[in-house]
Amino acid sequence: MTLTGKSFIGSSRASDNATPFTVSHAANGETLEPTFHSASSDELQKTVALAAAAFPTFSNTSPAERANFLRTIAEKIDALGSEITPRMMAETGLPEARCNGERGRTVGQLRMFADLIEEGSWVDARIETAQPDREPLPKPDLRSMRRPLGPVAVFCASNFPLAFSVAGGDTASALAAACPVIVRAHSAHAGTAEIVATAIASAVAECKMPEGTFSMVFDAGIELGTALVTHPEIKAVGFTGSRAGGRALMDAAAARPEPIPVFAEMSSVNPIFILPGALAERGEAIANGLVGSVTMGAGQFCTCPGLVFTGASTDFENGLKNGFSEAAPATMLHAGILKNYTNGLSSLKGQANVSAIGEVPSTESQAGPAVLKASASDFIANPALSEEIFGPSSLIIECQSGQDMIAAAQSLEGQLTATVHATDEELPKAGALLRILEQKAGRLIINSFPTGVEVNSSMVHGGPYPATSDGASTSVGTGAILRYTRPVSYQGFPDSLLPDELKAANPLGINRSEKA
Amino acid sequence: MTLTGKSFIGSSRASDNATPFTVSHAANGETLEPTFHSASSDELQKTVALAAAAFPTFSNTSPAERANFLRTIAEKIDALGSEITPRMMAETGLPEARCNGERGRTVGQLRMFADLIEEGSWVDARIETAQPDREPLPKPDLRSMRRPLGPVAVFCASNFPLAFSVAGGDTASALAAACPVIVRAHSAHAGTAEIVATAIASAVAECKMPEGTFSMVFDAGIELGTALVTHPEIKAVGFTGSRAGGRALMDAAAARPEPIPVFAEMSSVNPIFILPGALAERGEAIANGLVGSVTMGAGQFCTCPGLVFTGASTDFENGLKNGFSEAAPATMLHAGILKNYTNGLSSLKGQANVSAIGEVPSTESQAGPAVLKASASDFIANPALSEEIFGPSSLIIECQSGQDMIAAAQSLEGQLTATVHATDEELPKAGALLRILEQKAGRLIINSFPTGVEVNSSMVHGGPYPATSDGASTSVGTGAILRYTRPVSYQGFPDSLLPDELKAANPLGINRSEKA
Repeated sequence: MTLTGKSFIGSSRASDNATPFTVSHAANGETLEPTFHSASSDELQKTVALAAAAFPTFSNTSPAERANFLRTIAEKIDALGSEITPRMMAETGLPEARCNGERGRTVGQLRMFADLIEEGSWVDARIETAQPDREPLPKPDLRSMRRPLGPVAVFCASNFPLAFSVAGGDTASALAAACPVIVRAHSAHAGTAEIVATAIASAVAECKMPEGTFSMVFDAGIELGTALVTHPEIKAVGFTGSRAGGRALMDAAAARPEPIPVFAEMSSVNPIFILPGALAERGEAIANGLVGSVTMGAGQFCTCPGLVFTGASTDFENGLKNGFSEAAPATMLHAGILKNYTNGLSSLKGQANVSAIGEVPSTESQAGPAVLKASASDFIANPALSEEIFGPSSLIIECQSGQDMIAAAQSLEGQLTATVHATDEELPKAGALLRILEQKAGRLIINSFPTGVEVNSSMVHGGPYPATSDGASTSVGTGAILRYTRPVSYQGFPDSLLPDELKAANPLGINRSEKA
Repeated sequence: MTLTGKSFIGSSRASDNATPFTVSHAANGETLEPTFHSASSDELQKTVALAAAAFPTFSNTSPAERANFLRTIAEKIDALGSEITPRMMAETGLPEARCNGERGRTVGQLRMFADLIEEGSWVDARIETAQPDREPLPKPDLRSMRRPLGPVAVFCASNFPLAFSVAGGDTASALAAACPVIVRAHSAHAGTAEIVATAIASAVAECKMPEGTFSMVFDAGIELGTALVTHPEIKAVGFTGSRAGGRALMDAAAARPEPIPVFAEMSSVNPIFILPGALAERGEAIANGLVGSVTMGAGQFCTCPGLVFTGASTDFENGLKNGFSEAAPATMLHAGILKNYTNGLSSLKGQANVSAIGEVPSTESQAGPAVLKASASDFIANPALSEEIFGPSSLIIECQSGQDMIAAAQSLEGQLTATVHATDEELPKAGALLRILEQKAGRLIINSFPTGVEVNSSMVHGGPYPATSDGASTSVGTGAILRYTRPVSYQGFPDSLLPDELKAANPLGINRSEKA
């Protein structure tokens, strides 16, 4: 496929008059072809107008029609695999297996949402039938279900060029919910974005969805993203990225005349707590697991464990020292992320009483894994020690006692995950710690590691701020669809005007709550 | 019961050192005993500290324990009925039947949430069991359910001194969800608040709930409310009141270092659309129904229909003229609300091309019902015509065509309800209008009136901003409990550490989604 560098304005392609930008090869820094062009302000307005115009039609497509649409997108992405992988490798530095694996996850997510909406029970259909003879007042027929919010703006993540980008989890769940989507492509992997957008645009046409169902804009800066979030016709936002970026979108959305929800997945240090018995019993094994979890994908997963609370242990520390010293430097997604990583690490090493356990120096082009340590009292006293450093590093916090761990846990901000390693004997006594961690995180893990996020019905990839903007949501798993919906009640409707999900005969055969 | 005018700081009563205020008799303006005292800033801090301390215990009470607690509150409120009603009548001007009826609704809500949590399926338990042999990676055991957010601040509504105040829907749903509650009493019915708070405090003690489970502060101004919403330990807010008040709380919550959700139910004009056939067939009957819906409770319901879109009809207009002219002036909740009503009505009458159809003059102490009219083109051109006037008035918008109605519908802000009156023949052609209204409102009604809000599982008392701050929520019905919860995943947990809702044997016998 010959890339054009032009935005997708519904079924048309944008002009190339607005700000140009280029994408660099992640590993060698060379400029990749072609030149990309920001959408113009008028073109952005047109994407939103098309999405708003598409909404009444798209939001009333049947679940079967949308399921077919999602599966068609998946097929077309798979068919483009041989084009996606080399471009994605060049733009992101991710290895081939990861690129192919992430494509598998992406099409898997699209198919999961297709299955979910075809099964149909997710709409939470509730039926209260009428009681005309009720005293003192008749009871009306009242039925409710979840309905789509309206056009959604999706911001692509730098760290998941497929699974949280153009056709990623936010887009898949919004389309499944029957919301038109306007994607703001990530400028670091714009070519990958263009290939995937081609697949979606083609599926829109083939499945005869309204034109405004999908658009994608390139943006050299942040202007178009801000314009999207503040546009009156945009009704929700999906974002995965930095805390500063997510908070800026949250603030812009909250300041609108009509505030809208922003579902931003932002920052998490994914603390791990190792209880003394587990440390004594398998300190080295835990160290090995930790090395793998921290260095996986050059530490560029949202669930990379950046903080570990533990007692002192030579086995554990040696395991870390060896593991981190032997880990290879790795290419990061782009030069900016590498720079942030090395700056963050320098800043952390400059904090009082922080020392290195094991470290591989970063190079001009690659991030070296690092593990550092500090004391629990320093951790609690110095907020700089709990800041996320995006990349392959972790900070070990040595705790003198269980009380240290409890105090450290209480001092944590909101997290995507929190993990406890303990022996069978210790677990029953871990209740107080787990209760604190439950207030801090969306997912609690025992005796494993936070990386490796299952995409299924029980996954909560969310958590209190600043892990996400809305701790009551998940961006991974079937629950992600709920973000782009709201319940609507229908009172006194004739059967013919009700959505199929609420009709008396239950033509879709979904699970419903029915009361008289 | 002798009222003290002192705040409830957990199980203690506040000092009387801070700002005093008094409550006026709604009908005659006389000062009622006693003098009430704002909680001090230190006392407010103490309520939050107690709530935070209570959370780990209260959030781990069993559903059965909390159901018993909610039912005990209901019993104690019923037992105080003979004290509540006269005080409530004096403070609010509401007639005896309404006071008793609203008490019935309030205890009914408490018992509904008790039943809901005892039944237990609302937690949305999802179980994905492990597949240790899955390739390429083992599948972990992952289970999720809804868990409480933390301490919740509840602001009492002026228009529901019981059902949306101290022990109202926000408090009942938050306590059911296992969140401690701090109530900010409404200063216009502080005596009613004190009686109800006594019932809750007594239930906390009798059911051995932790002290911080419930507190209630009096506040002469808005300082304590703001302090509550911005306190780091408060994790959510429930509010029913004005758009200005709700928006101020939304903005304060969004500007926190850790933003929190605000569930504010604020303002709605509850538009009614009368299609030509229905107007011709039963214009007078619809007019009579409208008079009843608008004047019910002196127009002080959130669902009072303030806008009616219809063609011209002598029958309909005469019906309105007669109905509104014969309606009696009524005492409003307090002098401030009456003043806002008369000012709002004067301002509306001062708009170009707005004329009166029928009107009863307001008196010094009572609101006179009024019905006015304007054209669809003036309505669309002048945003002042769509502003809520809280009280017994409605504005008829004469539409020349179905297109006028569609354009008017498109111009509406978010609403709690939207209603269509149509004949059986007209309904199949009302799809375009209903699709627009579905984007605007939380509840759609056919051939009835929006007042009379069922409290059950299918009710959505919510809607896009400015009807509420969060259109994905409802403040009435069983769905209200979801506001104060978030999903949490448990990965690799031994059965003994899982919440009962997620244990292998399903000891609570709830509905769950289980996948392997």
